[in-house]
Amino acid sequence: MQKPAIPKGTRDFSQIEMARRNYIFSTIRDVFALYGFAQIETPAMELMSTLMGKYGEEGDKLLFRIQNSGEKANEAPEKGLRYDLTVPFARYVVQHRDTIQFPFKRYQIQPVWRADRPQKGRYREFYQCDVDVVGTDSLLAEVELIQIVEEVYRRLGINVCLHLNNRKVLAGIAEVIGAPDKMIDITVAIDKLDKIGVDKVNDELRERGLSAEAVEALQPILNLSGDNISKLQSLRTILAGSEIGLKGVAELEEVFNKLSIVDCRLSVELDLCLARGLNYYTGAIFEVKALDVQMGSITGGGRYDNLTGIFGMPDVSGVGISFGADRIYDVLTELDLYPAELQSTTQVLFACFGEDELNFAAQCATTLRAQGIRVEVYPEAVKMKRQMAYADAKHIPYVAIIGSNELAEQKLMLKNMITGEQQLVSLQQLSEMLQA
Amino acid sequence: MQKPAIPKGTRDFSQIEMARRNYIFSTIRDVFALYGFAQIETPAMELMSTLMGKYGEEGDKLLFRIQNSGEKANEAPEKGLRYDLTVPFARYVVQHRDTIQFPFKRYQIQPVWRADRPQKGRYREFYQCDVDVVGTDSLLAEVELIQIVEEVYRRLGINVCLHLNNRKVLAGIAEVIGAPDKMIDITVAIDKLDKIGVDKVNDELRERGLSAEAVEALQPILNLSGDNISKLQSLRTILAGSEIGLKGVAELEEVFNKLSIVDCRLSVELDLCLARGLNYYTGAIFEVKALDVQMGSITGGGRYDNLTGIFGMPDVSGVGISFGADRIYDVLTELDLYPAELQSTTQVLFACFGEDELNFAAQCATTLRAQGIRVEVYPEAVKMKRQMAYADAKHIPYVAIIGSNELAEQKLMLKNMITGEQQLVSLQQLSEMLQA
Repeated sequence: MQKPAIPKGTRDFSQIEMARRNYIFSTIRDVFALYGFAQIETPAMELMSTLMGKYGEEGDKLLFRIQNSGEKANEAPEKGLRYDLTVPFARYVVQHRDTIQFPFKRYQIQPVWRADRPQKGRYREFYQCDVDVVGTDSLLAEVELIQIVEEVYRRLGINVCLHLNNRKVLAGIAEVIGAPDKMIDITVAIDKLDKIGVDKVNDELRERGLSAEAVEALQPILNLSGDNISKLQSLRTILAGSEIGLKGVAELEEVFNKLSIVDCRLSVELDLCLARGLNYYTGAIFEVKALDVQMGSITGGGRYDNLTGIFGMPDVSGVGISFGADRIYDVLTELDLYPAELQSTTQVLFACFGEDELNFAAQCATTLRAQGIRVEVYPEAVKMKRQMAYADAKHIPYVAIIGSNELAEQKLMLKNMITGEQQLVSLQQLSEMLQA
Repeated sequence: MQKPAIPKGTRDFSQIEMARRNYIFSTIRDVFALYGFAQIETPAMELMSTLMGKYGEEGDKLLFRIQNSGEKANEAPEKGLRYDLTVPFARYVVQHRDTIQFPFKRYQIQPVWRADRPQKGRYREFYQCDVDVVGTDSLLAEVELIQIVEEVYRRLGINVCLHLNNRKVLAGIAEVIGAPDKMIDITVAIDKLDKIGVDKVNDELRERGLSAEAVEALQPILNLSGDNISKLQSLRTILAGSEIGLKGVAELEEVFNKLSIVDCRLSVELDLCLARGLNYYTGAIFEVKALDVQMGSITGGGRYDNLTGIFGMPDVSGVGISFGADRIYDVLTELDLYPAELQSTTQVLFACFGEDELNFAAQCATTLRAQGIRVEVYPEAVKMKRQMAYADAKHIPYVAIIGSNELAEQKLMLKNMITGEQQLVSLQQLSEMLQA
């Protein structure tokens, strides 16, 4: 018989993996709730007409299609698996526009599927965790998302830096150096400044078609230094001739100003090289990196002015970020930051020598559970060694052993699985210990 | 442009629907955790070789197949969407047998997909919520599952009755009336006793090929009455000649005995007509019905002796139940049993008359959130009517209004959205109110 397996690029999640993933998701959810974001879910399948053409030619090829079955297979519309949470969200907003309250603050935590070639850290099924506000262009939305980033990573214990950029500033730079159509080329090139140095960046800029004058005009921007405030002051001077550029500077200033008003302690760095999502972001662009571990972006997002235009509903501005659950998982693992309690949720295992003892254990367990204590009863009176091995493997911290003496006394021999100590206790004493 | 839509038989879940679903799932999860069950997840896609032939000919037709894409599409193994959680669980147990601790207590809450014709209450994507213990034949497992049913429905506030049967008793009945190959026919016929009466049941039994003697011999069983204990006593006499029948009676007696030892208050009724899952259950059979509403079974399950045999791992006995989330949702809706808090998680909305007021609101919100209070700030200083309408539509119970007077005094005009009362309060006072 064939050994059972799962499709390439997919994963089973074991109990400990689920405990860790649930810890990440529930931390994130709790913070979302503090800001009034509420959860929605959309179906795994969307119509192909909803998905096609939204992710570029490459993306279209990576969509998983579902075969229609049944008699009318040929007449049924084509369906495919969700590729991200953004397009289904846009479809949701348009479809339910009449019942949605705007500004609409929603989050969504669901798997997505991509027929990518599987490799280390890249899966064909993975979870996304998106939080967005749509229907307002207030910069308070950006500020609250940054506060959410601060609080999520504070709770998870990960030191992070948030990189902040603004598409309008980039457009302004391209404009003032006389290369308004080269914004993306410029950003992609200066993104490499740290790695390849200013001379090679200039070479690349020229290769990408910038004139010598434009490259020259860009130098003050490449040399910007100092803190966020002084960078913004310099930018204000440099971009004096660009309306859109000044608008971007003003937006950044307002975000920094509001962050200071709400006493945000997160490290936020103005980063003109941040080139993420330039094809669709129209204002703020965010990216979050962990400071104590080598890992790409663990959270990112930005403002978009036209989420729902593709579905015929124009002028819906929004801003959102996405938490990368798989990478956060890896960061927490690498830094060993998971709470010890995740190892086991069970607080005590009852281990018994016989049937009468088992019945007494079931009574004790019922009493403890009514007090909210998480209890297992090893269901068979097998050798004590095997029952102990079960507790050990499951990292259960206490075993309450019941033999004939304990049964006669209506007491429990309680073994601390870490220290090995044993003591005879009453059920009442055990309950007090575990609730303490 | 085409109106956006989703595939037939699938659903979007709005914020309030998600809040209700999450309430059901988190109630169930909390109870599972008290008994030491831990969560696993499996991929949405399984290999077709894992799925095919496991659900009968009809089931095979209802599997959603995924088209392979990419260059090597023809070489890649065929994949399909998960049809239930049982087959993936069996596959999981065999695949991970070396790292699993037995008895293995797991639960799984995930969507499944079936290409059924959509109709009222029947969807092509729906969640299942399965909890199983495998690797033990201890009847304590049955008892704990019944206790879980008791506690879940006590917490949800739904009055239920659990119907209990045992496949071995049914086999024994068929044996003693001389029709050992007619067990399923007999059960299906007597399942109609309440609806069609004893004469028509006897007609049907004869039509199904039972001899007159067999039908005659069955009459004492059709006439069984009294409480569970007296029914079991009668059965013990009737089944005296059947080894398997007596084994079934002994199992039922032990389950009832243990339920009484742990002081289970759930209404549990011995129901010989319960015919659920006779093709695979080998011992206990459970079904739970809501008492105060017309609805089919809302939870069901049983014991199986050979979960993993299909994947080459014999003799793994287990017992499990499945909570029907969609039906529980409908019962709670019909009986209006959802906690009022689910309407809104946000406790207070800040509504402002200007930019300075908005900044003050953002500060107040930050302070309250640090205390665990769930706060929204309406992000724009639009007309107060619109801000109030937002709070109203989202069922937010309090609105803290900030105009120039409140800003000058650093206070808030707090409006109770239910009574309409307004009072000027300090942030400290608001915090105390909301935490009380």
